[in-house]
Amino acid sequence: MPTIYQVDDLLKRAFREDIGSGDLTTIYCVPADKAGSGRLVAREEGVLAGIAIAAKALVYLDRSVQCKLLFKDGQKVSRGDIVLTVEGPLQPILSSERIALNLLQRLSGIATQTALWVKEIKDYPAKLADTRKTTPGLRVFEKYAVQVGGGRNHRLALDGGIMIKDNHIVAAGGIGEAVLQVRSRAPFTLKVEVEVTNLAELEEALAAGADIVMLDNMSLEEMRRAVVIGAGRAQLEASGNVTQSRLREIAATGVDYISCGALTHTVKALDFSFLLDK
Amino acid sequence: MPTIYQVDDLLKRAFREDIGSGDLTTIYCVPADKAGSGRLVAREEGVLAGIAIAAKALVYLDRSVQCKLLFKDGQKVSRGDIVLTVEGPLQPILSSERIALNLLQRLSGIATQTALWVKEIKDYPAKLADTRKTTPGLRVFEKYAVQVGGGRNHRLALDGGIMIKDNHIVAAGGIGEAVLQVRSRAPFTLKVEVEVTNLAELEEALAAGADIVMLDNMSLEEMRRAVVIGAGRAQLEASGNVTQSRLREIAATGVDYISCGALTHTVKALDFSFLLDK
Amino acid sequence: MPTIYQVDDLLKRAFREDIGSGDLTTIYCVPADKAGSGRLVAREEGVLAGIAIAAKALVYLDRSVQCKLLFKDGQKVSRGDIVLTVEGPLQPILSSERIALNLLQRLSGIATQTALWVKEIKDYPAKLADTRKTTPGLRVFEKYAVQVGGGRNHRLALDGGIMIKDNHIVAAGGIGEAVLQVRSRAPFTLKVEVEVTNLAELEEALAAGADIVMLDNMSLEEMRRAVVIGAGRAQLEASGNVTQSRLREIAATGVDYISCGALTHTVKALDFSFLLDK
Amino acid sequence: MPTIYQVDDLLKRAFREDIGSGDLTTIYCVPADKAGSGRLVAREEGVLAGIAIAAKALVYLDRSVQCKLLFKDGQKVSRGDIVLTVEGPLQPILSSERIALNLLQRLSGIATQTALWVKEIKDYPAKLADTRKTTPGLRVFEKYAVQVGGGRNHRLALDGGIMIKDNHIVAAGGIGEAVLQVRSRAPFTLKVEVEVTNLAELEEALAAGADIVMLDNMSLEEMRRAVVIGAGRAQLEASGNVTQSRLREIAATGVDYISCGALTHTVKALDFSFLLDK
Amino acid sequence: MPTIYQVDDLLKRAFREDIGSGDLTTIYCVPADKAGSGRLVAREEGVLAGIAIAAKALVYLDRSVQCKLLFKDGQKVSRGDIVLTVEGPLQPILSSERIALNLLQRLSGIATQTALWVKEIKDYPAKLADTRKTTPGLRVFEKYAVQVGGGRNHRLALDGGIMIKDNHIVAAGGIGEAVLQVRSRAPFTLKVEVEVTNLAELEEALAAGADIVMLDNMSLEEMRRAVVIGAGRAQLEASGNVTQSRLREIAATGVDYISCGALTHTVKALDFSFLLDK
Amino acid sequence: MPTIYQVDDLLKRAFREDIGSGDLTTIYCVPADKAGSGRLVAREEGVLAGIAIAAKALVYLDRSVQCKLLFKDGQKVSRGDIVLTVEGPLQPILSSERIALNLLQRLSGIATQTALWVKEIKDYPAKLADTRKTTPGLRVFEKYAVQVGGGRNHRLALDGGIMIKDNHIVAAGGIGEAVLQVRSRAPFTLKVEVEVTNLAELEEALAAGADIVMLDNMSLEEMRRAVVIGAGRAQLEASGNVTQSRLREIAATGVDYISCGALTHTVKALDFSFLLDK
Repeated sequence: MPTIYQVDDLLKRAFREDIGSGDLTTIYCVPADKAGSGRLVAREEGVLAGIAIAAKALVYLDRSVQCKLLFKDGQKVSRGDIVLTVEGPLQPILSSERIALNLLQRLSGIATQTALWVKEIKDYPAKLADTRKTTPGLRVFEKYAVQVGGGRNHRLALDGGIMIKDNHIVAAGGIGEAVLQVRSRAPFTLKVEVEVTNLAELEEALAAGADIVMLDNMSLEEMRRAVVIGAGRAQLEASGNVTQSRLREIAATGVDYISCGALTHTVKALDFSFLLDK
Repeated sequence: MPTIYQVDDLLKRAFREDIGSGDLTTIYCVPADKAGSGRLVAREEGVLAGIAIAAKALVYLDRSVQCKLLFKDGQKVSRGDIVLTVEGPLQPILSSERIALNLLQRLSGIATQTALWVKEIKDYPAKLADTRKTTPGLRVFEKYAVQVGGGRNHRLALDGGIMIKDNHIVAAGGIGEAVLQVRSRAPFTLKVEVEVTNLAELEEALAAGADIVMLDNMSLEEMRRAVVIGAGRAQLEASGNVTQSRLREIAATGVDYISCGALTHTVKALDFSFLLDK
Repeated sequence: MPTIYQVDDLLKRAFREDIGSGDLTTIYCVPADKAGSGRLVAREEGVLAGIAIAAKALVYLDRSVQCKLLFKDGQKVSRGDIVLTVEGPLQPILSSERIALNLLQRLSGIATQTALWVKEIKDYPAKLADTRKTTPGLRVFEKYAVQVGGGRNHRLALDGGIMIKDNHIVAAGGIGEAVLQVRSRAPFTLKVEVEVTNLAELEEALAAGADIVMLDNMSLEEMRRAVVIGAGRAQLEASGNVTQSRLREIAATGVDYISCGALTHTVKALDFSFLLDK
Repeated sequence: MPTIYQVDDLLKRAFREDIGSGDLTTIYCVPADKAGSGRLVAREEGVLAGIAIAAKALVYLDRSVQCKLLFKDGQKVSRGDIVLTVEGPLQPILSSERIALNLLQRLSGIATQTALWVKEIKDYPAKLADTRKTTPGLRVFEKYAVQVGGGRNHRLALDGGIMIKDNHIVAAGGIGEAVLQVRSRAPFTLKVEVEVTNLAELEEALAAGADIVMLDNMSLEEMRRAVVIGAGRAQLEASGNVTQSRLREIAATGVDYISCGALTHTVKALDFSFLLDK
Repeated sequence: MPTIYQVDDLLKRAFREDIGSGDLTTIYCVPADKAGSGRLVAREEGVLAGIAIAAKALVYLDRSVQCKLLFKDGQKVSRGDIVLTVEGPLQPILSSERIALNLLQRLSGIATQTALWVKEIKDYPAKLADTRKTTPGLRVFEKYAVQVGGGRNHRLALDGGIMIKDNHIVAAGGIGEAVLQVRSRAPFTLKVEVEVTNLAELEEALAAGADIVMLDNMSLEEMRRAVVIGAGRAQLEASGNVTQSRLREIAATGVDYISCGALTHTVKALDFSFLLDK
Repeated sequence: MPTIYQVDDLLKRAFREDIGSGDLTTIYCVPADKAGSGRLVAREEGVLAGIAIAAKALVYLDRSVQCKLLFKDGQKVSRGDIVLTVEGPLQPILSSERIALNLLQRLSGIATQTALWVKEIKDYPAKLADTRKTTPGLRVFEKYAVQVGGGRNHRLALDGGIMIKDNHIVAAGGIGEAVLQVRSRAPFTLKVEVEVTNLAELEEALAAGADIVMLDNMSLEEMRRAVVIGAGRAQLEASGNVTQSRLREIAATGVDYISCGALTHTVKALDFSFLLDK
């Protein structure tokens, strides 16, 4: 679960963006002293993620608003499930409803899709992992949703792991040199991962002492051979052209991780609605 | 196109989020004085949106980086098209590439889907419009992408239009009372829109002097009758359960606008890649 | 009433500005554990505005400070009226007193003057409206004070209404073209207002379908004719050279709105003082 | 002249406040590539203040906008004087014009009034000084305008001088004790000023070694006697009930400073307009 | 004690810096619902400073964490003293411990050293003062620690005192001219200090009416003569080459203040540790 | 070298803190149009760190100021060496000098001490490493200075490495369980370090698969045995009670890293001065 200030910073931005100079409809239609209650309801089946964040959104404008969480992140929800109830003054509730929904729908959408893909490879040791292809400003939230869905996190940011890609290798003058440079200067608390596109490069990366090797866009056959070569010397991550239909085949090659940008860059929102009690 | 400070604020957030304490791989693998060039390439067909923002991302860390834009927002791109070239010191280019891609892919994804849907109803006067179901922190960017794709913007934020929904009506004590309250107090530069779910409410909204009436989840038949009733008295906006397959039918009812949250909440990223010149 | 974060943002700025490195007098003269009570007192007659914001200022530095509001915004106050009492630790009370007063005096000054001007035209349907000629950083607060005084708000910011001025018309190539451009691209939730300086332009604006027409610096006779011409086709707003002495005459022409920058740009503070109980 | 970051911070706030999600009129009426020129013109006589800040506002959104300053702060302007010309792309010029004017009008209004009051007492050694009764967020700007008008600055913030008021004296247990506390603990680079309401307190303050004594709301006769008593022992500042008509009388008593909140809390904007060249 | 918002701003920065995307060890090792208690313990003898700030750090991430302060700032602590106990959920306690320690150790280190130096000159009227040679971002905190240790504060920032140095004198064209310029334009609530390097300049500064004269790098003999010359005309501050071993000699010359940058720029942290109760 | 925005953020804070409402001495003594030149001079021997940051500080207030760097970070400087020259308008140069010096002195102090300690163990494979005991707000700067001095960085923040301490072990229910939890949930790009206090715990940590083991406050004899036990299974980091005099002995035990908080928490500033050219 994201740290408290990460949630606060996100909500601060979201409210200033959505309300601007004021929620004029609500201010002028709803008496300031009118109270009521409402509920967040799932409109389709999926895996819940972000319920506590949605609750924080609903109380953001007024601390006297009260939320009751009826489901937890990671639980399955079905159409019609009430996941949260809220009561208090109506003005702040109505002004925050959309933000709560926008966050909950996106995060639950990610968790739902991740869970589906994770299930696909449940018979293999391979783990499904995310990437840095996230929405700017939502990184830790979207990576949290991947976890909720059963996926694993790759590095959270550029300071959370060494990842030597093609361009770095060219600039450094070879895999060996790149690894050497990093090993002698970067924080020694980080693993060193090297991206390779063929088996010769894999050998080079292993020789250089890479902790993890990313097999970029390799064929299934190449991956199988990579697993044989790399066994016990480094962890292997398959990446590139990962689709739901290819997942099982890739997992069957024996790689340790399968990483996939679509988990966060191409998301179908999970539908929820907010209803006031009449 | 978003205002300069909106772009700056977004990039500021994005870079702090993605780099954190430092892009350690690049710092330690790529010599600080090493220069080079590269290109952003489309990997599938679609409508380009956000190219100027991507360019700003690429020069964010170092003003000596130079970008050349080869395509404009709104243009069609095909697989293999080079949309932008960049040259300068390699460290800042490599550290900003992912952010440029994440933004470009999301915005182009929105523009591409919007263009597809707009084409669907091109034979009718109805306009396709977005909603407030956008990603927190990206509102003006995503709404800009909808425009680029040929869609129309509904209000940008809660201060950019009066939108009296069911909950407001209940709280105010009826449609007439709600409109009256707003008309006598809100800025008179804003139109007043009322959400209705049946034809009786439509009559009430028209009688109250609504400028726009949103027909929420009505059947095609109801919408057709609404168009007859509302003709010349208010603009009509169809909303709810809007899918690509239903678009033409809805447009054929004669409504003025069709609004759809999926344009921004369920987005398939358009694929681009960044390549350094060897 | 401004949204909670608008108040918080303003107070954050105000306290950092006024205290700087520290309220050194108070820190070194007043024992940290000394408590007491005090009161905000009106020193002249007027309309109160901003009392809740003043109260927030007084508790800003220490949540254990307690305020009791004895008057509400919009009420008349007379010399000697106690509008608020406060009690708690003296250090934070003394360090926040000036900020509370500065805000209350300015906002009440605006409300008082607005109420005076509104009274002037109470026999006519015309409404008195504000403009964007506000103090940078205080827009929503000053516009709120205008409302408290009985005035109406014009758009709160540039995103809250379309206002086509002379310069826009020139740039677009005519009134008709300008309106057309905006109608086809701007959010359809905003009214379109056009500024005109003579009756020929008024006709053009009406023909182009303007929702509101601003009559800029017209003579009373011109305004009277404009009202006849525009009847039922658009709302009319008189602007320019609006002084207290001309108000009734302008209102008598039959225009819908009279807007005036002086309501916010030339303000006489309403006098209040803060007194500690002995 | 305020420091560069003070100007930047103010403009940052002002633009986000005024533009919000976007200057929609300008974006949609004015082609992005249309350039032009314009001028800031004085519409009444007064003392100019803030011209460099207005120029910064005009170039804030686009560095390719060029300003030429034809007058300097402190100069007299007459109706019709062009104080600044600007040229460049029209969109950013039109979107920044109002902010430039709002600042220039307020600061020039303050400078103009200050100059008038200063002239009133030019035959006496007394100096006219400002107070902390400024607009929240504009402190250094308004105090700068007072200087431009020929006035003197009292402390800029609570950390720029010790000012022992009635409430501090009560809390500390007497004037002597209050001064002692402060002298032994506050930064020794600050003068110590004590507020007194009668001559007995003046004697006490002098005995305690005050550097400056503020004579609060004293009669002219009392002030004259205070000047005799205080001669050579401390500087004397007259305050309270300072109006333009009483200025000369107060100055004639021989006090060193006359401070007055109205210089900044009750301001008549000096009228300027912005015109595009046709 | 620094103002509440100064503490909040510092902690905000400190937590974002130290936690980054998340305290991953704690999140994944410590169950979210696990509670416990702990204590801050002194590991060497010294003067405590910053205990309330450390307590604020410990509750920063979760308001349900409770702290109990067993010592006050300014008190002596010995090895083994428990200065604070804390209890509550373990996750936020473990994630905030390092920040609490880093601040407490630095501030107590400053207070301890200051106290030692102050003791050195306790038989003389001279006061030990700090400078602006503080850690960027910690100015008011480090100056507070100097006070806790018994030292005096020189100006807190550039706006809290006039300090005319060599470079200013050259630029202004002489000591007399520099003082004149400042006296006629700067806030009259600030004392004027002039830096001199020999007795001729001292005479000049006194003649110009300086309130304080800083004797820069003078010999003991020169300082003694300066004290004779300056007696009753200005306060004298010795500065430059101030070491612990020279302190008494300098104080014996009769100067009023001895200022020393090392109090804040060369600090030995006082050792504390945080222990969870088993 | 810290990223550009890290430097900008630090300078932004530093200038607002040090200048506050204004550098009043400089504004009023130094004519705005007066230009000149100056130099930063080393006053003692040491290792330079932060010269580019000092240069950024000197140009922060005015881009027309020009700096020329005569030394690079990592070079040795001797008393009298001119490390940087600057020229341009005097006002911004004088207002930024102190901030440039404060940063340069601190960072060079850290680099100098680190280099001294690194030299001490140059005959052993052990590397000297820093900790998280840094000054709040200066983390990446101080860690950069350690690198400049030849030291190695431990994790930069809590998201840059897993570090299971005593408290985590207790909370998780044992070393094995703690490592298991983290391995199955934390980003797989981070190494897992475990803190142990005796050889039994070392065995447990190795069995659990720790990548790094920290030997906390062990005796030299224990460390020697730990090296034998751990050989080839994990890297070993000695920590606790690391002083300059014990460094060689610790290194001689054969550990891989020696980490020491004093490198950043107890710093002696390296002396530099800024001189204007006459």
